[in-house]
Amino acid sequence: MKIVIVGASGTLGSKITKDLEKDHEIIKVGTKTGDIQADITKLDSIKEMFEKIGSFDALVSAAGGGHFGPLKEMTTEDFMKGVNSKFMGQVNLVLLGQHYINPGGSFTLITGVLSDDPVRNSVNLAAVNSAVNGFVKAAALELENGVRINAVSPGVVEDSPQLFSAFPGHKPVSMERVVFAYRKSILGHITGQVIKEV
Amino acid sequence: MKIVIVGASGTLGSKITKDLEKDHEIIKVGTKTGDIQADITKLDSIKEMFEKIGSFDALVSAAGGGHFGPLKEMTTEDFMKGVNSKFMGQVNLVLLGQHYINPGGSFTLITGVLSDDPVRNSVNLAAVNSAVNGFVKAAALELENGVRINAVSPGVVEDSPQLFSAFPGHKPVSMERVVFAYRKSILGHITGQVIKEV
Repeated sequence: MKIVIVGASGTLGSKITKDLEKDHEIIKVGTKTGDIQADITKLDSIKEMFEKIGSFDALVSAAGGGHFGPLKEMTTEDFMKGVNSKFMGQVNLVLLGQHYINPGGSFTLITGVLSDDPVRNSVNLAAVNSAVNGFVKAAALELENGVRINAVSPGVVEDSPQLFSAFPGHKPVSMERVVFAYRKSILGHITGQVIKEV
Repeated sequence: MKIVIVGASGTLGSKITKDLEKDHEIIKVGTKTGDIQADITKLDSIKEMFEKIGSFDALVSAAGGGHFGPLKEMTTEDFMKGVNSKFMGQVNLVLLGQHYINPGGSFTLITGVLSDDPVRNSVNLAAVNSAVNGFVKAAALELENGVRINAVSPGVVEDSPQLFSAFPGHKPVSMERVVFAYRKSILGHITGQVIKEV
């Protein structure tokens, strides 16, 4: 299977890459690293990425960020960070990628627990995670030729201890569980699902 | 209570206005109608609106739209319609409005059933409804001085028969039920809730 991994060098992306590269052809995408460079906040950069890659079987995203900070001081500009990156960046991967993906292929996007179980300072990420979850559920009703789409929604992961204090009472999730969730989406047959690992 | 109703002349806004104006001071806001004109897709227009209104007790939104159409043909520009209007328009009402609202006040935003139960052609609205639901749940953890926030998420409403064929099997919801949901948010004491009327 030819699998594109966007955010392949990140905390999560590097684990997913390591898991899949034994059995599959992997195209690693990063903003500055990987086989192909792309910035998902820029539409032209995504277009260029797909033109270079051509057809593929699975697109896996472990990319996109947002703004973490107090609501009281939040500006629209702060809020747009997550909208342009984790939300529209991933939506654009699908809007454009649907014209390159092979029949029977799959999209797997990343969201996170804040959509359902927010913490303080998380309004931006709670909104954009929720947005991507809603998008995935609706897009599954329309993708053709057996193309599937899912989101992986993990809790705070074990490999990000710097986040633990911002997530009081959230039990850290093993990277292994999250990698298995990606496998379920990429190698399994479900569609329109938000795979929650919390 | 001084209640600002954004989208006061719409299908839903007019019913909410009629229900509340018996007992409260209502400031009707519309793009072209009402006591004050504002376009929620424009940040400057929202700023100007709040400067004119000053402090208030409740902000009620029945405003914002999105793009309804096939995923296969959807462009980023199409998708941004809902992002700029129903999503960021309503988020900006809160980001700015939090600095004008009185202690004990409330924000009530509008979403809709497509976040959980999408239909074809609804990827944009499914995403933006979900986004606003996620925002509301997270914002409730941070608003101060007893200020509350909720979303009302109705199914397709009885007064929009032109939408019925796009929502196969969705039982139309009475306007009365939706008006009661707004009452629950504005006059009751809950916060961080998505009030589903389906």
